[in-house]
Amino acid sequence: MSDAVTIEVGLGARAYQIRIGKGLVAKAGSEIAALKPGARTAIVTDENVASRHLETLTQGLAEASIAATPIILPAGEKTKSYAMLERVVEGLIAAKLERNDLVIAFGGGVIGDLAGFAAGIARRGMPFVQMPTSLLAQVDSSVGGKTGINSPQGKNLVGLFNQPKLVLADTDVLDTLSLREFRAGYAEVAKYGLIDRPDFFTWLEKNWREVFAGGAARTEAIAQSCRAKADVVARDEFETGDRALLNLGHTFGHALEAATAYDSSRLVHGEGVAIGMALAHRFSSRLNLASPDDAARVEAHLQAVGLPYRISDIPGSLPPAEKLFEYITQDKKVTRGALTFILTRGIGQSFIAKDVPQSEVLAFLKDNLAE
Amino acid sequence: MSDAVTIEVGLGARAYQIRIGKGLVAKAGSEIAALKPGARTAIVTDENVASRHLETLTQGLAEASIAATPIILPAGEKTKSYAMLERVVEGLIAAKLERNDLVIAFGGGVIGDLAGFAAGIARRGMPFVQMPTSLLAQVDSSVGGKTGINSPQGKNLVGLFNQPKLVLADTDVLDTLSLREFRAGYAEVAKYGLIDRPDFFTWLEKNWREVFAGGAARTEAIAQSCRAKADVVARDEFETGDRALLNLGHTFGHALEAATAYDSSRLVHGEGVAIGMALAHRFSSRLNLASPDDAARVEAHLQAVGLPYRISDIPGSLPPAEKLFEYITQDKKVTRGALTFILTRGIGQSFIAKDVPQSEVLAFLKDNLAE
Repeated sequence: MSDAVTIEVGLGARAYQIRIGKGLVAKAGSEIAALKPGARTAIVTDENVASRHLETLTQGLAEASIAATPIILPAGEKTKSYAMLERVVEGLIAAKLERNDLVIAFGGGVIGDLAGFAAGIARRGMPFVQMPTSLLAQVDSSVGGKTGINSPQGKNLVGLFNQPKLVLADTDVLDTLSLREFRAGYAEVAKYGLIDRPDFFTWLEKNWREVFAGGAARTEAIAQSCRAKADVVARDEFETGDRALLNLGHTFGHALEAATAYDSSRLVHGEGVAIGMALAHRFSSRLNLASPDDAARVEAHLQAVGLPYRISDIPGSLPPAEKLFEYITQDKKVTRGALTFILTRGIGQSFIAKDVPQSEVLAFLKDNLAE
Repeated sequence: MSDAVTIEVGLGARAYQIRIGKGLVAKAGSEIAALKPGARTAIVTDENVASRHLETLTQGLAEASIAATPIILPAGEKTKSYAMLERVVEGLIAAKLERNDLVIAFGGGVIGDLAGFAAGIARRGMPFVQMPTSLLAQVDSSVGGKTGINSPQGKNLVGLFNQPKLVLADTDVLDTLSLREFRAGYAEVAKYGLIDRPDFFTWLEKNWREVFAGGAARTEAIAQSCRAKADVVARDEFETGDRALLNLGHTFGHALEAATAYDSSRLVHGEGVAIGMALAHRFSSRLNLASPDDAARVEAHLQAVGLPYRISDIPGSLPPAEKLFEYITQDKKVTRGALTFILTRGIGQSFIAKDVPQSEVLAFLKDNLAE
């Protein structure tokens, strides 16, 4: 019996499927054999994922007679670098993979972003499959084709729009995540409800414990999230409009990540997004765009699942508001100098606000830091 | 009065124009202002081109009120490296260019390949304009969207298919090239006649002196070459079929370049292609595919313009045939291990030959080295 759910990402010639379900790592061999008969593969992964799951994957591939060369990298955000990009690309070439072969990105967001980028430039482009192993990667980074590395000048400033040929999200693998990692991914799940699916947010308020526990509710939450993301990406693949909605919570979140020097012991990406979403709702209420009740509801839910939601929830000291504001203006979602924010008129009513007054943002940050 | 010729590269949403004519460097400002009103630019170039032509370009841009940040790199093939790619990408980000701004690749093939690749990955893709300053770049590398760098494991193994928004080929600039550089580029001009334009080859046999001298015949030869390349690229943008015809002379040529360790004092790319084309014709005649008269005609023309056409024309000693053969099988134009060559049935009758017997290639190389 298979409870796998399949979602279509409608991108014309670049369309692909997302498969979500239990035991998909072990079943990857037959999926990949069906996708690209005769192709050889390289598995790009990190040390943590390799020690837990690589054997299951390579065994499944071997049973389907698929050759696989593993390329194992250090875990962590620092791996999204020029040096590691070179290492992966050279590894793919050394493995004698050709343009008809296949790269498998097997890991969290760091591995997916890096391997997808490397696949896009090795021999001017090889097809790749995303096998996300973190909740964050399953509901966000593995879908939509954004790939890349970090620049010393900022995160994700170098990369490609490069769509995978298939996404295989094994929901069982998530049981090996730490609770903190799972929660961080959950922030992006809640985000889809807050952007434009109020019923999904209400469902999460009732069912989040089952999502954390695993089983059908988890598969359902991931599927809803992927559907939401696929819809936005199909409308705006290259982020010239609507796709920016996916950045709800990210402008504040990125600034907080930068302010904590990307120290994951203090703040990981999903936690930054959780605080960022709470701030976006509070800021919207301060600008009289939304009711304060909605901001309170968002905060209550984040608190219930154990996510941080206030700047003061971050351990250690933070720079002054002026510095945080500087990080915000350095964010890449700036069009010809104008400040763009994702704000909201209520739960599930987010919108892209351009020309947000800089003085309001600064005053808001000052109040939140003083809290 | 303008004698500029315009050629359309028909690639649907990625279509663009190639403009060929005198004085286009000075006129680039108005061209670029018309292409992307309000865009800021970065000019990627090398030290040689910068010292000769950068002032003319920046002055023309300034007259059209276009801001330009120069990024000046060392000249030479070694610049097509990971390290220089990083330098250009970081330079584009530091120049605060955004996704609507413009990268200008101003130089020969090395600069065009590198800058086009960097433009494709900085902020996940910025538009770029090719301003080729060598004959080789004007008739070959600036058209068709192949961009990239070299891997320690082989040339051009890392990169993107990334089409420019415009190509501006100033034919006057070619007068600053050395005769040897001009000749090397001319090999690629002759190639288009040999692939599928026998009348063009006949025209070149009569008019090559005027092409070298400059004026209308030069513009005509470059325009014919660009038209020929644009036709092939429009048919097969991502090189899944016909586009491989453009590799006429390149399989032998690349092997010879590798055998001379890419030492430009011994052999430059266009010279390798010239010898490679002569070899492809001779090999085709040996396989009874073409008349030996055609091979003799090709050799006579290459000799007339002063290009090498025999392996023995390369100064210094070469490795044995077995080693040359090894370089050939390492060439990236290998599909699942099968040897693919561009062979010919006569002048202007090239075709893609798959499964060429490896023993024939080796025997042919042995005979040619013994010559």
